[in-house]
Amino acid sequence: MLRRYPVGIPLSGDFDLVEADVAELNEGEVLVETHYLSMDPAPRLRMDGAAVFPPPLPLGQVVMGRGVGIVRGSRFAGLSTGDAVAGELGWQEYARVSGAQLRKVDPQAGPLQAALGVLGPSGITAHCLTNYAAKVQSGDTVVVSAAAGSVGSVAVQLARSLGARVVGVIGGAHQARFVREDLGADAVVDYRSSCLDADLADACPGGANVFLDSVGGALHNVVMACIADHARIVVFGYISAYNSAAASQREYGSIYQIIRRRATLCGFLISDYAPRFSEALTHLGAALAAGTLKSFEHCVQGLDNAPAAFAALFDGDPVGKQLVQVRPLKNSKQRVTP
Amino acid sequence: MLRRYPVGIPLSGDFDLVEADVAELNEGEVLVETHYLSMDPAPRLRMDGAAVFPPPLPLGQVVMGRGVGIVRGSRFAGLSTGDAVAGELGWQEYARVSGAQLRKVDPQAGPLQAALGVLGPSGITAHCLTNYAAKVQSGDTVVVSAAAGSVGSVAVQLARSLGARVVGVIGGAHQARFVREDLGADAVVDYRSSCLDADLADACPGGANVFLDSVGGALHNVVMACIADHARIVVFGYISAYNSAAASQREYGSIYQIIRRRATLCGFLISDYAPRFSEALTHLGAALAAGTLKSFEHCVQGLDNAPAAFAALFDGDPVGKQLVQVRPLKNSKQRVTP
Repeated sequence: MLRRYPVGIPLSGDFDLVEADVAELNEGEVLVETHYLSMDPAPRLRMDGAAVFPPPLPLGQVVMGRGVGIVRGSRFAGLSTGDAVAGELGWQEYARVSGAQLRKVDPQAGPLQAALGVLGPSGITAHCLTNYAAKVQSGDTVVVSAAAGSVGSVAVQLARSLGARVVGVIGGAHQARFVREDLGADAVVDYRSSCLDADLADACPGGANVFLDSVGGALHNVVMACIADHARIVVFGYISAYNSAAASQREYGSIYQIIRRRATLCGFLISDYAPRFSEALTHLGAALAAGTLKSFEHCVQGLDNAPAAFAALFDGDPVGKQLVQVRPLKNSKQRVTP
Repeated sequence: MLRRYPVGIPLSGDFDLVEADVAELNEGEVLVETHYLSMDPAPRLRMDGAAVFPPPLPLGQVVMGRGVGIVRGSRFAGLSTGDAVAGELGWQEYARVSGAQLRKVDPQAGPLQAALGVLGPSGITAHCLTNYAAKVQSGDTVVVSAAAGSVGSVAVQLARSLGARVVGVIGGAHQARFVREDLGADAVVDYRSSCLDADLADACPGGANVFLDSVGGALHNVVMACIADHARIVVFGYISAYNSAAASQREYGSIYQIIRRRATLCGFLISDYAPRFSEALTHLGAALAAGTLKSFEHCVQGLDNAPAAFAALFDGDPVGKQLVQVRPLKNSKQRVTP
């Protein structure tokens, strides 16, 4: 549960680990045994009492978080005990949730946790970014700002498959190796380099035609300095500011470059693409089956390690999808009222 | 001539008024007697020795500036003595220019100086902004940032004709009256108001669907705070920074609002629309003839007043197109070698 709103990077002490009975299911509800929780940066924005959009998470309540698990009891017509499901489960071992808000997962499509990553929100977001929002085409030079992250690691692969030259922005040797060797990026640049502008210019000889940015801040401006004419910039996050007070005040980019390059910069919320999610999943599933798309995950064991795994999104050097494996439970008495 | 690069708002002392003979025409050249010069903010960006794009104006040379005038001698096949022409004449009474770079003006289409304003670059820019870049539609709420300016005063009228609700950003009572009464804006807000955010919210009850911005800076951010979902922002200047050192470093807007509203922000250079200039002029000419579009000008007499008229773009409260009428000449010995 969220004990207090973190200041800066969240600490374990900002959270409480609480044990409680599971209440009886109401009509339409389902009891889900959580197997994996997805660790994502965006909920940090809601761990702020002054947040406006999205609104603050209430203190003393279970922390929001997407997960996958197995139905252990159901009073919802569309789901039965034993079904695999994904959705908003929260940071808890058992979740009592409305069945209508869960997505049934096909266990044949891949490992269960893929429903949180490459066959879930991260993959769908990467697919919509590259195909629908940025319309990446063969010959484009595409810069991906958090290339080793959950969305970035899929976006790099998809942009490569679309025939683009892909430049991944990374931090450190571990991420560099991952993005270059495992994801197949054409080049990587380290955002901590003392000559990042020159590194980027080398990596993008004709300028960047597409910039997929979830980082913002100083990095955004450096990449904006090397965009090509008529570049398309899609901003879908600004993680560089998620731990600052007044994150919503962050400015970005250079109006001069936007005009000089007649660039188009657009904001992206994945919810706008809901009508195309199933189409996206079909493409992603086929690519995964064909081996042209790979799933990369890093998994931490136990719900008690969730706060540290969450903080590592901001100050670690995560590669791929960051997960918490909730099962097998440690020190847990299963007191479930089915 | 430009004597030195201005610091801040240009002063008369930054310029020299020089008298010289006109050299003989080379093959392909035309001698133009300048009648009107257009005063525009953008050349200020080139009065900077450190400018990159566009490059600095050379010191000791005639200041760039668009003008209209009458051909007084021609060695260019397409133009004859007596023709009215518009183009890059520079701040001078007689210009020796390449005939191919001039546009022949139809004296029947309107007064000569309209070729610098509503039937010239200002009108064409406003037409391309509203119709092609922002695609203003009936029902849109359109905010125009420098509504009393040369482009803004046409854009307000065109957006109104397209059925939009138009909110003009102005400075002072003089501009307020002009934009509201002469241009027909639905509302005006004063950028110097101590409660500009509330004024804008009142003026745009459902948020702004379109924002045509040539100002940038603090004003840009305040307007960005009141955009509607899926707003279209077209940036075509950032006059608030034209007199600052390092104008090209100016940041803009809030990435948070761009994402939250899934807005699209694009840069605009009028040169990209060259293939549509004649189409734009046809529309503008028809609107002028029909009386649905009006031309508003403010004219200063004499070339020696050009520096002050130029400076007034930044620290005055200009309304409509700002012009310098070069003829009739004051204190001038006409020493022309035709």
